[in-house]
Amino acid sequence: MSARGGIDLGGTKIQAAVVDEGGSVIGESRRPTPREGGPPDVAAAMAAAMREAAKEAGVETQALAGVGVGSPGAVDDAAGTVSSARNLPGWDGSFALAKELGGALGTPVSLGNDVQVATDAEFHLGAGRPYGSLIGVFWGTGVGGGLILDGRPWLGRHAAGEIGHMVVKMDGAHCPCGRRGCMEAYAGRAAMEAKARHEHEKGEKTDLFKLMKHHDKDRLTSGIWARALDHGDKLAIHLIDRAVEALGAGIASAVNLLDPEAVVIGGGMGTRLGQPMADRIAGAMAPHVFFDEPPDVRVASLGDLGGAIGASLRVAGRDSSDGR
Amino acid sequence: MSARGGIDLGGTKIQAAVVDEGGSVIGESRRPTPREGGPPDVAAAMAAAMREAAKEAGVETQALAGVGVGSPGAVDDAAGTVSSARNLPGWDGSFALAKELGGALGTPVSLGNDVQVATDAEFHLGAGRPYGSLIGVFWGTGVGGGLILDGRPWLGRHAAGEIGHMVVKMDGAHCPCGRRGCMEAYAGRAAMEAKARHEHEKGEKTDLFKLMKHHDKDRLTSGIWARALDHGDKLAIHLIDRAVEALGAGIASAVNLLDPEAVVIGGGMGTRLGQPMADRIAGAMAPHVFFDEPPDVRVASLGDLGGAIGASLRVAGRDSSDGR
Repeated sequence: MSARGGIDLGGTKIQAAVVDEGGSVIGESRRPTPREGGPPDVAAAMAAAMREAAKEAGVETQALAGVGVGSPGAVDDAAGTVSSARNLPGWDGSFALAKELGGALGTPVSLGNDVQVATDAEFHLGAGRPYGSLIGVFWGTGVGGGLILDGRPWLGRHAAGEIGHMVVKMDGAHCPCGRRGCMEAYAGRAAMEAKARHEHEKGEKTDLFKLMKHHDKDRLTSGIWARALDHGDKLAIHLIDRAVEALGAGIASAVNLLDPEAVVIGGGMGTRLGQPMADRIAGAMAPHVFFDEPPDVRVASLGDLGGAIGASLRVAGRDSSDGR
Repeated sequence: MSARGGIDLGGTKIQAAVVDEGGSVIGESRRPTPREGGPPDVAAAMAAAMREAAKEAGVETQALAGVGVGSPGAVDDAAGTVSSARNLPGWDGSFALAKELGGALGTPVSLGNDVQVATDAEFHLGAGRPYGSLIGVFWGTGVGGGLILDGRPWLGRHAAGEIGHMVVKMDGAHCPCGRRGCMEAYAGRAAMEAKARHEHEKGEKTDLFKLMKHHDKDRLTSGIWARALDHGDKLAIHLIDRAVEALGAGIASAVNLLDPEAVVIGGGMGTRLGQPMADRIAGAMAPHVFFDEPPDVRVASLGDLGGAIGASLRVAGRDSSDGR
């Protein structure tokens, strides 16, 4: 009766889930994010994914206590709008997503920032459960961050958590954001792919792009990077080493500022490469951490569903299993 | 009747103040920190400074509502101890400062971290009053930081705020802390003096050390740096430029993570160089800040007394003028 819906709206895919009172996923569905059209087309695809997930769960969407959305761009839950979601088609302006989606599904819709809802999910139901404070690091196309301090999300004026744009090297590498020396300039998958392409064009040998074509991808996904590492691809190994070094410096900087109990590493790369990679990142942090006792560094445990589960936690009246 | 005492315990000087109900300083005294002996000698000097400040205020120390202390090292207020205050003589271990000082003064003593109490003072009574969240940056021998989030100090597990040891350049300059590339390695006065000495010994011309001797100092104080800048000393200008660049990158990183309303720049260097330097630091932050609206950057307004005033705020039952 009080099942909730959650939708993780990403630039590549839309992940929907229906979550029961205990926090278990009882239905889920995934579909590609439309690459053309505009916000109404994206909203229609989100509604379709949610209906599929609800069908799998054996409920009508109208019977859900509500649906939460984790979205990129500038999210204003009070106004029900998402603005400037530039990795979505035609979404440079503002769009009343809550109203549009709520109308299509027949249930109230609540909006949150994609990274923050994923952090909330890990805190309430995932790898962050043992801790009262943590930094969530979502290592994917970019590097996003979410903060839980004293059991509550810290959002700042509205947009805290831009850990990917902490400076790890003054006058360093060019970042996709246009700035220089950001952690994401070394560790973001988009920046890593650009660097790999550049090195490959200069004559560096690598199987990265062969693997990409072989697996019918049009970009270097986390899975491609993982396979290239498994194959001992020298360029992949070098670029991952470089990313880990930057993640170590940047996350350690955040730790020195906030002294949290834990760091949780998620995102496509984090989830795919798992706890062994989280341990390597902890090793790269060690030379920079100012405290005798470093925080625990754990891989996110909810995997690709974390965003959708976290979005479902936004639904009011939820009754999570751990009483948090 | 409810006047409170505050003591800022520094590696160079002990600053004591008596503060009335409205937050005004009604008595103050300063004396050098003992360079020899051990914690009991430091405690005796603190008690003497407090007695002098109380005399100026026309009260007995026994009549104070209490005395707060801002201390370096590892502070445990519940236990009343300060440990590992390595810039104080013979203070590698733990010492029951609250009991010793409370006995000498006849009033309860409360202990806090030196940087955090200075941040509290700026938040409640100084440049931070208009804001609900801020990062305090104390630019002196080292670079310390204090955080106020949603109106409350954020201490992490116990030692948050080590902004000086955020990494601004991987594999960068050696920091006095033994690590590499920390903001303090470029901006801390101790690191700046070591660099100036090294460059001078290599043949670089500078009046920094002449000014130091002329003003009867044994190190490059904030006043010496300010004078050298006024004289157009090329090495001083270069090293301050380098410090400002590092402060800009490091503080911008902290801002990108926390999205606070304001940054307050204090410490010996910050206070001496004033708002024009705070504006320069804001300019150095600009290329790195991820948000369209950067936070306000203000120089601390309580000057050298901020630490002692902030320490006095630790006394329970205080009645600050702004109702915070």
